[in-house]
Amino acid sequence: MNKKFIIGIDLGGTNLKVALLDLNYHIKDKEILSTRSFMEKDHLISGIVHAVNRFIKYNNLSKAEILGVGLGLPGPTDAKNGIVHFFPNIPGWKEVKLRDILRKKLGLAVFLDNDAKLMTIAEHKLGAAKGFNNVLCMTLGTGIGGGLIINGKLYRGFNNAAGEVGHMPINEKGAACNCGALGCLEAYVGNRKIGLEAKKSFKRNITLEELSELAERHNKIAIDVWCRIGGHLGFALAGVVNLLNLDAIVIGGGVAKAGRVLFDNITRALKNQAMIVQAKRVRILKAKLGSEAGIIGAAIMVKEGL
Amino acid sequence: MNKKFIIGIDLGGTNLKVALLDLNYHIKDKEILSTRSFMEKDHLISGIVHAVNRFIKYNNLSKAEILGVGLGLPGPTDAKNGIVHFFPNIPGWKEVKLRDILRKKLGLAVFLDNDAKLMTIAEHKLGAAKGFNNVLCMTLGTGIGGGLIINGKLYRGFNNAAGEVGHMPINEKGAACNCGALGCLEAYVGNRKIGLEAKKSFKRNITLEELSELAERHNKIAIDVWCRIGGHLGFALAGVVNLLNLDAIVIGGGVAKAGRVLFDNITRALKNQAMIVQAKRVRILKAKLGSEAGIIGAAIMVKEGL
Repeated sequence: MNKKFIIGIDLGGTNLKVALLDLNYHIKDKEILSTRSFMEKDHLISGIVHAVNRFIKYNNLSKAEILGVGLGLPGPTDAKNGIVHFFPNIPGWKEVKLRDILRKKLGLAVFLDNDAKLMTIAEHKLGAAKGFNNVLCMTLGTGIGGGLIINGKLYRGFNNAAGEVGHMPINEKGAACNCGALGCLEAYVGNRKIGLEAKKSFKRNITLEELSELAERHNKIAIDVWCRIGGHLGFALAGVVNLLNLDAIVIGGGVAKAGRVLFDNITRALKNQAMIVQAKRVRILKAKLGSEAGIIGAAIMVKEGL
Repeated sequence: MNKKFIIGIDLGGTNLKVALLDLNYHIKDKEILSTRSFMEKDHLISGIVHAVNRFIKYNNLSKAEILGVGLGLPGPTDAKNGIVHFFPNIPGWKEVKLRDILRKKLGLAVFLDNDAKLMTIAEHKLGAAKGFNNVLCMTLGTGIGGGLIINGKLYRGFNNAAGEVGHMPINEKGAACNCGALGCLEAYVGNRKIGLEAKKSFKRNITLEELSELAERHNKIAIDVWCRIGGHLGFALAGVVNLLNLDAIVIGGGVAKAGRVLFDNITRALKNQAMIVQAKRVRILKAKLGSEAGIIGAAIMVKEGL
C-alpha cells in the first residue's frame, strides 16, 4: 500500500495555516499565510486551493496519495453537511457550502469543522486530554472557544453548537458581550479585556506577553491582574464542573501562555466555588499541542471521519 | 411466565413514598409516609423494609414475583456500588452501603440512585423529555436538583455527580449558597428564597401556592416576583444551553406549579441571554410525571438495570 498523507488547514482571524501530515499526524511541511491578504471570500477560497496544490506539487505527491483535506474554521459550522454558517471575525461568509466548493475545485475529499472542536479532538487523542473521558477543552484568545468530550467522544449538541464556554454568564448585570448578552465570561477574560485591565493597572499600554513576564518576575500589579482573570475563569468553570462532573479541563490559546500564575488562580477560584465531589475530581491542565492543535485535529477528522 | 412487579421508593426530605408498579410502570398500590417519623438511620431502614414487606403481603405476592426494589435518594450516591454518600437534609447518613443492607434484609434485588437522576430517566422515557436526545431535567423545590440526558442516555459524569444545575453560579459577588459557594442559582430560586422575596414584596407571609394563584389573577406584585425568579432561572439556563446546545429543558418540582407566569419569564430571559443558534433550538417544557417521577424512575432503573 502506498503511503498516504493528509492536508490539514487551520483558518484563523489572523493566520491561515496549511500543513501536510502523515497518517501518524506528524507535520511534514507547513505554510503560514496572512488571513487578511484574502479580503474577499473568493480570494480566500482560491488561496486555500492554491496552497493545497502547491503542497502536492512541491512534495512530489499525486492526488491519489492525499487521503483528504481537513479544515478548521473560526465560526459555527455544519460539519455533517460541510456548511459554514458564518465567521464572527471575517466578513462576507454566510451559509457557504465550502466543502462542496473545495471538493469540486480540488478533486479531493474535504472535511470541515469548527476550530475549537478540532482542537478538542486533537488534545483528546494526542494531547493533554488523552485518557480522560469527560473533558472541556477551551482556548483563550480574542474570543473564547470550547469543545466537550463526553463519555470519550466529541459532544456536538443538537446543531454542532455545543462548547460555548465563553458565553457562560457570570454576572446578571455584567458587562456587555460581543454576542449581544450580558456578563458572559468572554466579556471578562477575552484578551482585549485583559489588555484594558492591565492598562488601567499600569497606566500605560502593555502587551499580554509583557504582563506574563512581569508576573513571572513577581511584579505585584501584574500578578493581581492575572489573579482577577483567573478568578473569573475559575468561577465560570465551577459552574461547568458542577453541571458536568468532568475529569479534566484543558486550557490553551495565547492567553494560556501566562502559565502558572494564571493556572494557579483558576484552580484556586474553582476549588472555592465548585462542590466538593466535583472539585476534588477535576484536573486543570495546560493544552499540549499549542498552535498546531487545529491542524492536527483537522487531520484526525480526515483520517477518522468524525 | 408469571406476571412480575417492581417496588419503587422515593425518599424525600418530607415524604417517603413507596409504590408497587407493574412492568409497564403503572402504579398498582402506593403508601406515603412521613420521613420525619424515622429520625434515626436504622429506623428509616426498618421503615423501608416493613413497607416493602407489607406491600408484598397485602397484595398477595411472593418475593419471586418482585423483580426488584428501586430507591431514589435525596443526595449524592454511588449508584454502581449502591452507596449513599450523604443526605444534605437528613442527618446521620454517611457512606452507607444501603443496597447491601436492604438486599440482605429483604432477600430481593435492590437498586438505588439519586432522585434527580431517576426523575430525569422517567421524564425521558415516559414524560416531557421523551424523544429528545440532549436534555436537562430540573426540579425546583427547597433545593434545585438536576439530571442530564446526553446523546439519548443519562449522563453521570465521573462519579455520578453531574447535573447540579442549582449550583451554576450567576453572580460573582452573589448571595451565599447552602453549598458554601457564592451566587449559585439555588441561592436565588430555592423555595425558601422565593418565600422571602414574596414576603418582602407583600409585607406579609405568603405561601408559594398563594403567590401562584395571585399571579394567575393578574396581581402585579405577584407577577413581578415570578418575573424576577424566572429571570434568574433563564439567565443560568442560557449558560447551560450555550454550553450544551440542548434540545429541551424539562422543569418540575413544587415551584414549577406556578405555571405559565414562571415558564414565560424563564423563556424570555433565556432567549435574551443565550446565543441565537442555541436559543432557537431549545424548548422549555413542564415536567409531565409530577410527584410520581421519582417512583417511576426507580422502577425503570430496576427493569432496565441502569
